[in-house]
Amino acid sequence: MKVAVIRKAHFNAAHRLHNPKWSDEKNDKIFGLCNNYNYHGHNYELEVKVSGEIDPDTGMVIDLKDLSDLIKAEIEDRFDHKNLNLDTEEFANLNPTAENICVVIYNILKGKLGEKYDLHVRLYETPRNFVEFPA
Amino acid sequence: MKVAVIRKAHFNAAHRLHNPKWSDEKNDKIFGLCNNYNYHGHNYELEVKVSGEIDPDTGMVIDLKDLSDLIKAEIEDRFDHKNLNLDTEEFANLNPTAENICVVIYNILKGKLGEKYDLHVRLYETPRNFVEFPA
Amino acid sequence: MKVAVIRKAHFNAAHRLHNPKWSDEKNDKIFGLCNNYNYHGHNYELEVKVSGEIDPDTGMVIDLKDLSDLIKAEIEDRFDHKNLNLDTEEFANLNPTAENICVVIYNILKGKLGEKYDLHVRLYETPRNFVEFPA
Amino acid sequence: MKVAVIRKAHFNAAHRLHNPKWSDEKNDKIFGLCNNYNYHGHNYELEVKVSGEIDPDTGMVIDLKDLSDLIKAEIEDRFDHKNLNLDTEEFANLNPTAENICVVIYNILKGKLGEKYDLHVRLYETPRNFVEFPA
Amino acid sequence: MKVAVIRKAHFNAAHRLHNPKWSDEKNDKIFGLCNNYNYHGHNYELEVKVSGEIDPDTGMVIDLKDLSDLIKAEIEDRFDHKNLNLDTEEFANLNPTAENICVVIYNILKGKLGEKYDLHVRLYETPRNFVEFPA
Amino acid sequence: MKVAVIRKAHFNAAHRLHNPKWSDEKNDKIFGLCNNYNYHGHNYELEVKVSGEIDPDTGMVIDLKDLSDLIKAEIEDRFDHKNLNLDTEEFANLNPTAENICVVIYNILKGKLGEKYDLHVRLYETPRNFVEFPA
Repeated sequence: MKVAVIRKAHFNAAHRLHNPKWSDEKNDKIFGLCNNYNYHGHNYELEVKVSGEIDPDTGMVIDLKDLSDLIKAEIEDRFDHKNLNLDTEEFANLNPTAENICVVIYNILKGKLGEKYDLHVRLYETPRNFVEFPA
Repeated sequence: MKVAVIRKAHFNAAHRLHNPKWSDEKNDKIFGLCNNYNYHGHNYELEVKVSGEIDPDTGMVIDLKDLSDLIKAEIEDRFDHKNLNLDTEEFANLNPTAENICVVIYNILKGKLGEKYDLHVRLYETPRNFVEFPA
Repeated sequence: MKVAVIRKAHFNAAHRLHNPKWSDEKNDKIFGLCNNYNYHGHNYELEVKVSGEIDPDTGMVIDLKDLSDLIKAEIEDRFDHKNLNLDTEEFANLNPTAENICVVIYNILKGKLGEKYDLHVRLYETPRNFVEFPA
Repeated sequence: MKVAVIRKAHFNAAHRLHNPKWSDEKNDKIFGLCNNYNYHGHNYELEVKVSGEIDPDTGMVIDLKDLSDLIKAEIEDRFDHKNLNLDTEEFANLNPTAENICVVIYNILKGKLGEKYDLHVRLYETPRNFVEFPA
Repeated sequence: MKVAVIRKAHFNAAHRLHNPKWSDEKNDKIFGLCNNYNYHGHNYELEVKVSGEIDPDTGMVIDLKDLSDLIKAEIEDRFDHKNLNLDTEEFANLNPTAENICVVIYNILKGKLGEKYDLHVRLYETPRNFVEFPA
Repeated sequence: MKVAVIRKAHFNAAHRLHNPKWSDEKNDKIFGLCNNYNYHGHNYELEVKVSGEIDPDTGMVIDLKDLSDLIKAEIEDRFDHKNLNLDTEEFANLNPTAENICVVIYNILKGKLGEKYDLHVRLYETPRNFVEFPA
């Protein structure tokens, strides 16, 4: 009898897709415009889904204020108005593709929410491209 | 080989989150602005997902006209332009959180649709907050 | 050479359309479901458009942080999670139709922004119904 | 540890719902306006979800350029600005309901993507009606 | 002191862009895929803006129920689930481009609303292409 | 009797708000997070509105294919997947605020479209912040 609660959030960031083990030619071939040397950027839209039992006293699965505070403290403050490659530990050595960003966000939030809740993360890189973890 | 058919609907309602077993202080602490004594309100957006086999004669899982008529008769007419706490039986003694409203809608529709179809309900309380049942 | 800057905001409120000079029958006839005695509610989406010259030092017409702080202090804190009829001075004796709410918001913001900027307000009562002032 | 990647696409097409084994009366009764003799049409919005492991060298599940090229070549070029009943092989003898179109698109793409990826297709016939396969 | 009230509506229709005075080659060159012999179609989204003074007794510029009934009777019932070229008088001899459809809708509604209100019509042919009259 | 035609487009770019005549402290105070040394980024959504008379032979104000080709060649190819500060001539010495980007886009397109059409540009920096020129 689990119910899912979804909260949307967002952050704006610069990034560059690049594999340092590859030549410039191969990076261009694989990542195309996303490999632009001076970075480009996105408005990332985030949907965090938390599933669990309804607490009979509150009628809620999780306090949405607590959830949105958690997302702000752990995700928005970390990534908003940042260069993901240069300004963050998480992507210093990890290519900031939408897939990798989504898994990183999942792992950060999972570590805070614990085993009580099921977690699912959807991340829009643009309105036409988005990713989900777990699939 | 099941296909899902999703129909959107909506209703506008007033509500107040409140637990009568708690003090005013505790209600304020837990529910915050949502505990406002004189109610506040939302445009609830509803997505009803019905899954089943495609009927080979019609090419349809369920007649969308029948489904939208059912949602209108059972959900919109019951909750639209109402005060959920004061004007409905369902929430006379049940806190009208998004989670509880979603489960109530699921149960009403499940009772009408029967075992032939799988049912899933998503309810948007605001464009940034929504819930789903089953999770 | 004026440029317009638009900031979106939102508030959730309960209201009832009612003219105390009219009989119950006439109120029902004119306002229909919107006259529901125990109120109903909406997610109001607001677009505040401020037009002026670009400041050559900042490249901005108005600091968006200042504008969103102003909207929060003057509009969201005043109307969010409120019953417009019962909890606000502005609609104690003014019918809270979308048209009247829009003009009230325009007048509040115009009084704060002064003559330096042109102002235009759009207010969505639902995704399918909205109003603008000035027309 | 699978991640899902979703790409949106769209096509505009005319269609008519009709079962040639039925009388005109029965077609009118079952399909209503959708049985209009001279066709009507829609902006179909498509979401193709492809799930798999992240390639550690690219950080990607699938190259989005490859996926959007595949959708263009196999779906958009086939159905965009077409009359589904008259201009396509797929619906020459299959009623072009949203359900059937969705399964046809799934089968076309599955045949190209193979077993490496899980596939899921969502098709919007209008902003308020959409279908998914598998359910 | 005029306020504008906007109501959204929609209709689904098939159409073909074609100038019978031109050769097939010229029609193909000018209209491209939109000239498809067997038609294609769209979900047309319509925004009807009506501007006027607020009635002090109702707090409304126009009764939204009356406006949406008018749009349904005059526009949706006329064009929804139709082939614009074959099933309507308006486009029997007028090319059903978005521009022409928009002006036709304006003229129909203007004839019903009269001089009391200013009228403006926006018509979306797709989410990325739309037109407005008057400009 | 002018009709307006609007075409949406988009580009993803990195930028930094900064006035080189000011101290770091003043830049931080005025531009806040937008002054991040290593840039951040956005999905810019663009609406280009072109107004003119309907050509009686085509039923169109402007060929949408020509308009979208023009926007691609002059705006998307110039700014998409770029760092506006480092990779473009236009913002080498002009602060890339939404206001300035909007006026630059207007001037580029106006130079190509000429006096035959009226032009208006709307630019979304985020879904909640956008600008228009002329106001």
